[in-house]
Amino acid sequence: MDWKKEILSQVEKTYRCSFETAHLETTRKNDFLVRLSEILQKKADLILKQNQKDVRRCQKQNYSEAFIDRLLLTQERIRRMSSSLVNISNLEDPVGTIIRETIRPNGLLIKKIRVPIGVIAIIYESRPDVTIEATSLCIKSGNCVILRGGKEAVFSNLILVDCIKEALNLADINPEAVNFVKSGGRMGVRYMLSLNDFIDLIIPRGGESLIKTVVSLSTIPVIKHYKGVCHIYVDRDADIRMALNVCLNAKVQRPATCNAMETLLVHRDIAKTFLPEMAELFIKHRVEIRGCPETMKIISSAKPATERDWHEEYLDLIVSIRIVNSIEEAIGHINKYGTKHSDSIITSSNNSAEKFLREVDSACVYHNASTRFTDGGEFGFGAEIGISTDKIHARGPMALEELTTYKYMIYGNGQTRT
Amino acid sequence: MDWKKEILSQVEKTYRCSFETAHLETTRKNDFLVRLSEILQKKADLILKQNQKDVRRCQKQNYSEAFIDRLLLTQERIRRMSSSLVNISNLEDPVGTIIRETIRPNGLLIKKIRVPIGVIAIIYESRPDVTIEATSLCIKSGNCVILRGGKEAVFSNLILVDCIKEALNLADINPEAVNFVKSGGRMGVRYMLSLNDFIDLIIPRGGESLIKTVVSLSTIPVIKHYKGVCHIYVDRDADIRMALNVCLNAKVQRPATCNAMETLLVHRDIAKTFLPEMAELFIKHRVEIRGCPETMKIISSAKPATERDWHEEYLDLIVSIRIVNSIEEAIGHINKYGTKHSDSIITSSNNSAEKFLREVDSACVYHNASTRFTDGGEFGFGAEIGISTDKIHARGPMALEELTTYKYMIYGNGQTRT
Repeated sequence: MDWKKEILSQVEKTYRCSFETAHLETTRKNDFLVRLSEILQKKADLILKQNQKDVRRCQKQNYSEAFIDRLLLTQERIRRMSSSLVNISNLEDPVGTIIRETIRPNGLLIKKIRVPIGVIAIIYESRPDVTIEATSLCIKSGNCVILRGGKEAVFSNLILVDCIKEALNLADINPEAVNFVKSGGRMGVRYMLSLNDFIDLIIPRGGESLIKTVVSLSTIPVIKHYKGVCHIYVDRDADIRMALNVCLNAKVQRPATCNAMETLLVHRDIAKTFLPEMAELFIKHRVEIRGCPETMKIISSAKPATERDWHEEYLDLIVSIRIVNSIEEAIGHINKYGTKHSDSIITSSNNSAEKFLREVDSACVYHNASTRFTDGGEFGFGAEIGISTDKIHARGPMALEELTTYKYMIYGNGQTRT
Repeated sequence: MDWKKEILSQVEKTYRCSFETAHLETTRKNDFLVRLSEILQKKADLILKQNQKDVRRCQKQNYSEAFIDRLLLTQERIRRMSSSLVNISNLEDPVGTIIRETIRPNGLLIKKIRVPIGVIAIIYESRPDVTIEATSLCIKSGNCVILRGGKEAVFSNLILVDCIKEALNLADINPEAVNFVKSGGRMGVRYMLSLNDFIDLIIPRGGESLIKTVVSLSTIPVIKHYKGVCHIYVDRDADIRMALNVCLNAKVQRPATCNAMETLLVHRDIAKTFLPEMAELFIKHRVEIRGCPETMKIISSAKPATERDWHEEYLDLIVSIRIVNSIEEAIGHINKYGTKHSDSIITSSNNSAEKFLREVDSACVYHNASTRFTDGGEFGFGAEIGISTDKIHARGPMALEELTTYKYMIYGNGQTRT
């Protein structure tokens, strides 16, 4: 099987390279990012030409409009990729930071130091921007990258990987630091997921079924960026103007994102004053409302919500609304139907807010703010590789620091254990 | 299948309980630990009686002496478990610590807060002390625990779990916080490893084959505590007295532990002065020496080391020795044959030490000290649930802090995203 040999050889080369990449000086990594930024600009026409091959093939095969939009590159999108590379070059390098330092009674000095993870494999769908984004964040944090992108974007990815290799060479970095693995089809992915001696972490980027497949096949740790079924709970003590404002923002500002609100929970005592105004705003913004039976009594145009709706990530101008009897019921609903992503309470009561923030088991819990802020940029990380819905290693927005691990460096003068 | 129903019901109950356990006040958790400590002392005779049932059955079935030693409880061992519970009650509670706090330009206050992971399943062999140790560390860090211990220790474990439940009740903690899952045999373990909606983390405790099986079957994140093939590299610039002292300690002080030295690497330039004295000490302490061809020229009694030896965790009074031409060769050997556990360099050169500590890709890297210090107690953590050889989430000694994750609590006054 030639593809097996090819994958193994690429993965092994990347692994061996990881021992060098881990110790690259920051200036060299930044040089790579800036060079790549320049190359993307310079080769924009060529990149667009290759991208068009992918796009046209997918159009012929009747892929959805949304799919083709994710695949499509434009001058403007290349410009944005290029400037984001410069941004990442300006971020602080997390590698080498001392996390903690202790001197033990026996004189041993123990330093806990931030180091790269090693080899990170990104398995993603046909979004060529991920090729650049994942590479830049992994290299800046001292990791090597194995890219496995969707087959529909193969021409786009191959030209982008050429640009990456050219920039690595110019920055005097071993070009094996980034490899694009394309052979073997689905069996190739399955094989990659078994190479736990050479790959330290898998980050799948894409829909739920891609992630579930990766999790079920992988013997390598996986960090999952599952869907976001995000809630806002409008408490009895909410400021109604604020609640209207925040809920509208969380639903309509960019409904296709994972941090948009999907379900609105409203305390019974405020429902009759709050919901009619909220419904009016939603309808004005063309939001379809699906409500529980109580909601339907207040909003006559609402369709009935089914059990399925509470689980649903619409990613669209649709909202489900449920009236609850208490904050406990709201928290229970979120912990049952939510995806541990982002949830918010609107209330003037600090006690209720603290209870909600403590008891809702999600990566990001908000008091009086839109769920839309769950984002590496908004958190001040300068970038993100995704939003982890996992609880192990990294939770919420994942950026440079989350792409590192640590080691203990211990300094002695001959200590032995007794 | 009755066992499936039984396991699912136990796991679901534990999961539901985890929402309470996460917010327990420290005093209640400490009360549980102290009560359990008292109960173990009070019921020592009963525990020993049940343990004897397990021991006698295994003796009849000709289990190895080492196996029976791990299974065996004694008055002294119970006393030690009991006092370790009091120690853990005195450790700081990691839950609720603010890891970081930022105010964003839009006024949002973002707090990164330490929280429990949720439900942790411990899959282990027939060591009843793990039942108490894992439970105490998990509860102190606010987690719920599912225990799946080896079938040979079932009587011991059932009485210990009775003690745990009694202590939970006395401390007014929901007794579903700890459940012992015994049904279903191997299929039961496999089924448990698929319940990723209810279990957040698996920690296998035991031999390599147990861990590999768990990794290959689990869709739940696993933190692996693999074997320790630990090295000491005696550099050209080593202080010979110190090197002799540290190497002897790392090999003979407790050879059956994962942080004992298995392979000694020696720089060619120092080999002829260092190795004869080292060999004499090893032989005096009944250590069997297996050497590379160069070593055998210096130590006549050495047996030849094979390729297999460099991979081997002897856990016994055996050492493999290899002479290397440079520090690069030493680092290369460790990164090839080591298990990312603990490795040490003995040298008077700070440059060589820094190079070694930076480039050896292990959880704990030492300068002029014995590898035997890789231990939660020696690191000042007060306890440990094991030594992670993974790079994701936790590396090296894992104690209370490593049994937690974090969440972001975000405070606003009506912020929306534009």
